[in-house]
Amino acid sequence: MKTVNILIEALPYIKKFHKKKILIKYGGHAMIDENAMESTARDTVLLKYVGMEPIVVHGGGPEISRSMNKMGKEPQFIEGLRITDEETMEIVKMVLVGKINTTIVSKICLHGGRGIGLSGKDSRLIMARKKDPHVITNRETGEKKHVDLGLVGEIESVNPEVIEMLTENNYIPIISPIGVDENARTLNLNADTVAGEIASRVDAEKLIILTDVPGILEDPANPDTLIKKINISEVGELVKSGIITEGMLPKTMTCAQALQDGVKSAHIIDGRIQHSILLEIFTKKGIGTMISK
Amino acid sequence: MKTVNILIEALPYIKKFHKKKILIKYGGHAMIDENAMESTARDTVLLKYVGMEPIVVHGGGPEISRSMNKMGKEPQFIEGLRITDEETMEIVKMVLVGKINTTIVSKICLHGGRGIGLSGKDSRLIMARKKDPHVITNRETGEKKHVDLGLVGEIESVNPEVIEMLTENNYIPIISPIGVDENARTLNLNADTVAGEIASRVDAEKLIILTDVPGILEDPANPDTLIKKINISEVGELVKSGIITEGMLPKTMTCAQALQDGVKSAHIIDGRIQHSILLEIFTKKGIGTMISK
Amino acid sequence: MKTVNILIEALPYIKKFHKKKILIKYGGHAMIDENAMESTARDTVLLKYVGMEPIVVHGGGPEISRSMNKMGKEPQFIEGLRITDEETMEIVKMVLVGKINTTIVSKICLHGGRGIGLSGKDSRLIMARKKDPHVITNRETGEKKHVDLGLVGEIESVNPEVIEMLTENNYIPIISPIGVDENARTLNLNADTVAGEIASRVDAEKLIILTDVPGILEDPANPDTLIKKINISEVGELVKSGIITEGMLPKTMTCAQALQDGVKSAHIIDGRIQHSILLEIFTKKGIGTMISK
Amino acid sequence: MKTVNILIEALPYIKKFHKKKILIKYGGHAMIDENAMESTARDTVLLKYVGMEPIVVHGGGPEISRSMNKMGKEPQFIEGLRITDEETMEIVKMVLVGKINTTIVSKICLHGGRGIGLSGKDSRLIMARKKDPHVITNRETGEKKHVDLGLVGEIESVNPEVIEMLTENNYIPIISPIGVDENARTLNLNADTVAGEIASRVDAEKLIILTDVPGILEDPANPDTLIKKINISEVGELVKSGIITEGMLPKTMTCAQALQDGVKSAHIIDGRIQHSILLEIFTKKGIGTMISK
Amino acid sequence: MKTVNILIEALPYIKKFHKKKILIKYGGHAMIDENAMESTARDTVLLKYVGMEPIVVHGGGPEISRSMNKMGKEPQFIEGLRITDEETMEIVKMVLVGKINTTIVSKICLHGGRGIGLSGKDSRLIMARKKDPHVITNRETGEKKHVDLGLVGEIESVNPEVIEMLTENNYIPIISPIGVDENARTLNLNADTVAGEIASRVDAEKLIILTDVPGILEDPANPDTLIKKINISEVGELVKSGIITEGMLPKTMTCAQALQDGVKSAHIIDGRIQHSILLEIFTKKGIGTMISK
Amino acid sequence: MKTVNILIEALPYIKKFHKKKILIKYGGHAMIDENAMESTARDTVLLKYVGMEPIVVHGGGPEISRSMNKMGKEPQFIEGLRITDEETMEIVKMVLVGKINTTIVSKICLHGGRGIGLSGKDSRLIMARKKDPHVITNRETGEKKHVDLGLVGEIESVNPEVIEMLTENNYIPIISPIGVDENARTLNLNADTVAGEIASRVDAEKLIILTDVPGILEDPANPDTLIKKINISEVGELVKSGIITEGMLPKTMTCAQALQDGVKSAHIIDGRIQHSILLEIFTKKGIGTMISK
Repeated sequence: MKTVNILIEALPYIKKFHKKKILIKYGGHAMIDENAMESTARDTVLLKYVGMEPIVVHGGGPEISRSMNKMGKEPQFIEGLRITDEETMEIVKMVLVGKINTTIVSKICLHGGRGIGLSGKDSRLIMARKKDPHVITNRETGEKKHVDLGLVGEIESVNPEVIEMLTENNYIPIISPIGVDENARTLNLNADTVAGEIASRVDAEKLIILTDVPGILEDPANPDTLIKKINISEVGELVKSGIITEGMLPKTMTCAQALQDGVKSAHIIDGRIQHSILLEIFTKKGIGTMISK
Repeated sequence: MKTVNILIEALPYIKKFHKKKILIKYGGHAMIDENAMESTARDTVLLKYVGMEPIVVHGGGPEISRSMNKMGKEPQFIEGLRITDEETMEIVKMVLVGKINTTIVSKICLHGGRGIGLSGKDSRLIMARKKDPHVITNRETGEKKHVDLGLVGEIESVNPEVIEMLTENNYIPIISPIGVDENARTLNLNADTVAGEIASRVDAEKLIILTDVPGILEDPANPDTLIKKINISEVGELVKSGIITEGMLPKTMTCAQALQDGVKSAHIIDGRIQHSILLEIFTKKGIGTMISK
Repeated sequence: MKTVNILIEALPYIKKFHKKKILIKYGGHAMIDENAMESTARDTVLLKYVGMEPIVVHGGGPEISRSMNKMGKEPQFIEGLRITDEETMEIVKMVLVGKINTTIVSKICLHGGRGIGLSGKDSRLIMARKKDPHVITNRETGEKKHVDLGLVGEIESVNPEVIEMLTENNYIPIISPIGVDENARTLNLNADTVAGEIASRVDAEKLIILTDVPGILEDPANPDTLIKKINISEVGELVKSGIITEGMLPKTMTCAQALQDGVKSAHIIDGRIQHSILLEIFTKKGIGTMISK
Repeated sequence: MKTVNILIEALPYIKKFHKKKILIKYGGHAMIDENAMESTARDTVLLKYVGMEPIVVHGGGPEISRSMNKMGKEPQFIEGLRITDEETMEIVKMVLVGKINTTIVSKICLHGGRGIGLSGKDSRLIMARKKDPHVITNRETGEKKHVDLGLVGEIESVNPEVIEMLTENNYIPIISPIGVDENARTLNLNADTVAGEIASRVDAEKLIILTDVPGILEDPANPDTLIKKINISEVGELVKSGIITEGMLPKTMTCAQALQDGVKSAHIIDGRIQHSILLEIFTKKGIGTMISK
Repeated sequence: MKTVNILIEALPYIKKFHKKKILIKYGGHAMIDENAMESTARDTVLLKYVGMEPIVVHGGGPEISRSMNKMGKEPQFIEGLRITDEETMEIVKMVLVGKINTTIVSKICLHGGRGIGLSGKDSRLIMARKKDPHVITNRETGEKKHVDLGLVGEIESVNPEVIEMLTENNYIPIISPIGVDENARTLNLNADTVAGEIASRVDAEKLIILTDVPGILEDPANPDTLIKKINISEVGELVKSGIITEGMLPKTMTCAQALQDGVKSAHIIDGRIQHSILLEIFTKKGIGTMISK
Repeated sequence: MKTVNILIEALPYIKKFHKKKILIKYGGHAMIDENAMESTARDTVLLKYVGMEPIVVHGGGPEISRSMNKMGKEPQFIEGLRITDEETMEIVKMVLVGKINTTIVSKICLHGGRGIGLSGKDSRLIMARKKDPHVITNRETGEKKHVDLGLVGEIESVNPEVIEMLTENNYIPIISPIGVDENARTLNLNADTVAGEIASRVDAEKLIILTDVPGILEDPANPDTLIKKINISEVGELVKSGIITEGMLPKTMTCAQALQDGVKSAHIIDGRIQHSILLEIFTKKGIGTMISK
């Protein structure tokens, strides 16, 4: 009886998001722990079967560093961004496309979804250009230095045609965050940004970013201070007041940009919790932070 | 969390019956009690939203008799079949099509379904011919007499084109059990038979008959003796042994015929129980009797 | 030879109205007399076969009153509008949808058309809201009183999707003039208004209203004073001068509104005359009053 | 009133032949007399507008001979077949395709049809091969001689794809009876045979051959002896008994072959009579000879 | 190896003009010499097979005059325009549609193209009206006289629907330059103008006019003075300076008009050179004059 | 002029293989040398633009071994088959899908093709099962031993739906030879076998295997002994006589199997030669060995 009542409770959400595109950014814990990945994949397939159109973008930072170490190459970062020489780019590509993407595809297929792996290189899905070298200033010493991150790119355009062909034909696209420039050079991209841009271009209803924190916290040290809902207009204030900071800052900015580009709502949720996607979509309270216009 | 686990448990059924037609015969209590009707309609809409193709056939015996009484016309039956003169047929039509069907359509629409009412007269959906007068023998006295039920019909053919157009365009057809003969004469039909014939013609996955008993009972007086599953091959034995009898006999025969004509499973369930349709489809044990090949 | 010359004379009209929607309001005598109804149905089917897209809206006032009397309930009117309590609404629905609509469907099918019955409740075809109670003033005594007509509605919106699906698939929709509000409550609607609103929404070429007078008459007592053609700009004058009055007033207003909303021409014709529809469409002079822009 | 009754009488035929292909062979008087051609074209367009799919094949013998004479070239025949050297073939092509076909197209368009001219050369619609030279025996002297008719062809195959594209897109194809062989050589074909072969290949309902006699006559000298209907099984007898003879023999054989290849009925009618096509299709008695299986 | 390198060199052009419409005006030598016609047809088919959409318009002046002479009718011209009485019009039609068009169709089909012949009369493809009689002034004597060219027309509108149906279905349309007026009267049209107007109406990428000169020459007497490229803005100057003159003037004006109406580039090339179409499209230098915006 | 003559010579092949699927197995030298890969990609795109449907399957043995060495893992083979433990499988996947496949996709896109990378895991394109351990006998010592190759698979089924969606939408699929079993376990597959099986399943016209030898040689040491054409019936003899041996044996067997399954011709050609694909398809002699039925 409980089973059925819950199905009935889910009905309004199923109706509301019928045929709507849901962009899910797999990240954090959800990418490492086998069980969490299993649960995330199953949730994604369920969304498809109850009539939504899930699209997956995944990250993979930790796995890339692990593989680099294995191959005797030390990962290097400047202000959180990976310095990407050609050799590193090759490893990034192999890990994202050859390892993580294929694993997600497998999990999705195992649970009955028709997953198809893509990268930004497929039919030039994501055109990008190399980030210009830029000057950064050491906050403490005031020293400035020129930084060239190498093959790190900025998105120039997203061509959603392939994605739309796939969703219309009942496939679930799973996308690796690499781009390609005019000369077919591969560029390393930020996965959150890729998720946000694609969400905008395909007119997604929701952008859901899986992380390994509960959402935006008033006090990052205290999970009980989760902010359930914020309006896009409040983001500026929260940044100023130092509540949105560090890792959460770019994620929130990505969400804000996506909302401005037409996405209806953006969600930052905890990928470590089993079935967090479903909990966010199918319950009134949700489990993370929802940002809306 | 419970919510979500249950959705996950429902996933295999959602996948299995994706895009499959489910023929639901609304009958018994489900037709009278406002709450039960509400619940049945909501269940039907949910099936649609999670990807199945529900088609509804309804009955309406008690309501017809009530209306006849109101109009000062006494209902008459021979061996359970309504004697249908022209005036009665007019009332039958008004009650089934004008009252019950429109009410079900309303409930379905209220819960977000796109219900469309049909009768066997619409584009000659159900062609029938008047039942020949026949001889019946009084079991006690052995006395024989000629019986003419009047405008009671036997189905000759079902033309599923309209139904298929509707389901393909995401509508839920709700069908009144009346037929039409070559001369456009309206004929009164048995709703269970209509449900079974349509189920066969549209290649339904399931035929679900809502009644006001728990299903087939070994001892009709004891609801605890419910038979959960029977194979079509066992039906004969159960009839001989007197377990399937009276009202349950024609229903079971309709199910058996539908199975032989290609329907995958037939279900006799208790329409008085809230959400009985979902309980039957989405739980492993079900709540009524399932007949399969 | 005559046969053929007439077909040839009809050709320009057939060409002109090819694939055009023709909204026909069945009313008056055409609804009661079996032969007239037969002839009207046959005409409608012929329009379909020669390439037009007929859509039927029917009325049914007299029949409703007859049925109410039969059930021992006295019909009551205020200024020509039926006071519709819940019980009355139930009877209205049964008579319109269960009796009149199914009869028209039958006639249409008998002559080879693929008629499908609809009411405003089907997939919320006609959304309406209950008319607010209002004050009326007795012309003679000057006495004012509050009037609540009960479940009488005003159209809020027409959703033509179902109708378009049906005409595209070669069906002839036959529509009962009842509506539904947000809460699924059934409302009694004026059939002429329904016809006019649907004509506008489906971009009908013609709105043809069948009545039991020859059309707009200069002298209502003298059928020889029929006005064959009027321009929409002349309507105001004709009302002022008292020529358009009583029953003809709302019909003319419906026509004028439909013309303003894009219908190409509106026709008020005599449904008592056999094949009046064809005479109006296929002859140069027509037989009733044509209103155009 | 008469107008309308006649339309109503035509309805059964309109229904029966809805969306059916009607192959009309324009020949005889209908090709020469401006009025008759006008009337034939109008009839053809009417068939289209009331829902049938007319396809026209035309002949043109007399006109060809007239043009040859004009160009100082004497037409020559052996047993009724035109000896066709290259120069003659050139004239045949110019007259059939450039003159007669364009004139029919014009008439059809003038009456509102969307006529498109075709010859057997268009996209290799009619593949043919040159007739082998053969021996003929003088009936009186018994003398034998070798005869080579030159560029006279036998149909090898008809490729109906173009015709079907045109009819599906609401065009009326008008076809000149010339064929093309593997080497793109143009060949002169018998127009009746072309009509029959195309009728078969496009699954025509009717093959209607316009001639300048009333049909098959028991006594060719007496138009009152018209045979209204014959069954394909009677053809042999009628040939043996000398009733079907001369010009009527190949026409009848073409009809018989078309019937055997699936055409439902074949008609030999008098093209000199105005609107003979409509009279044959829309009246019970018809005006010529109908051959059926 | 050479073969393949050349294919590879052609690839950029094949890509650039993929699915683009190329309007080719067959004229001059290409129409008379059997080999040149063969080569032109083969080129046209090749364009189709490598993914472009060729559409052919042909002329036929010399052949018309030849045929007129043969029939004992002397061709007459005023200022280069053929005086077209009814008899002449008949011959024009026969030669263009019956002879030249069918011959091109044959050649196209022989090389594997699916050629379909059309004239402006087919489904009223080209609507025109008779040129008004006008006054011309003798340059030497200053004498004025009224000139009526007879059935010579000016294009009023082009209805590209048939052409688009054909190209979409992989046919190659071959069009004779005659038009039709409201009364179905046939009118003689200038083939270059027809080519230009159709190019505009179908949004052609290129208009290619085959002539029997190398292109626009600075010194018409010296083929080495070919101007390879001109911008539409330079046309005026070239006319003023007397470089574009006589026969080249109307061709250049047609090109300029087409460019203004949206065609991307226009080409005047030498039809006497084998494969001139391919040389113009697939080589960087081209072989004639290209006019662009 | 040469340019154009060669295009004209290519026309028959372009016509013959219009819309036909061409399965190209990239292997050997073509996979390593940057220029050769560039040339192969350009050829593949050209096939697409001239109307064929290329589908690519690639190998990658040497690259895999190189990467394994880099990661400090020694490649091991038994009778030419790679022993594939889980760690090796991970590297295989990363190299094939993440490195080689994305590189081919890039090259294809750079030359204007719409390449999309796939592996057998995408929507379960290639279902396989682990090869059973088997006994092998040392030819010299006669010693037998059990061999378990680990995650090496045999193809069970190919699901061509994704490939067909892609080719119909003008994409070029590029496929990595890995498969997936019922439990989502990744399996290492032989690329030639994958190419052959897919060729059969998609009804390819041609299977073209790029190698680093000229084709089948009578004397493997002497490239001048190339056998240009063999019939499938001769394969047995050539194997017996020791001409087809070693590496060529499985390739030939794959070709023979594909031919038996409906592929029209199979080609073993030298991928080291620039544009070898075009030379094989567009020249009469070809450059490798063609096997046909």
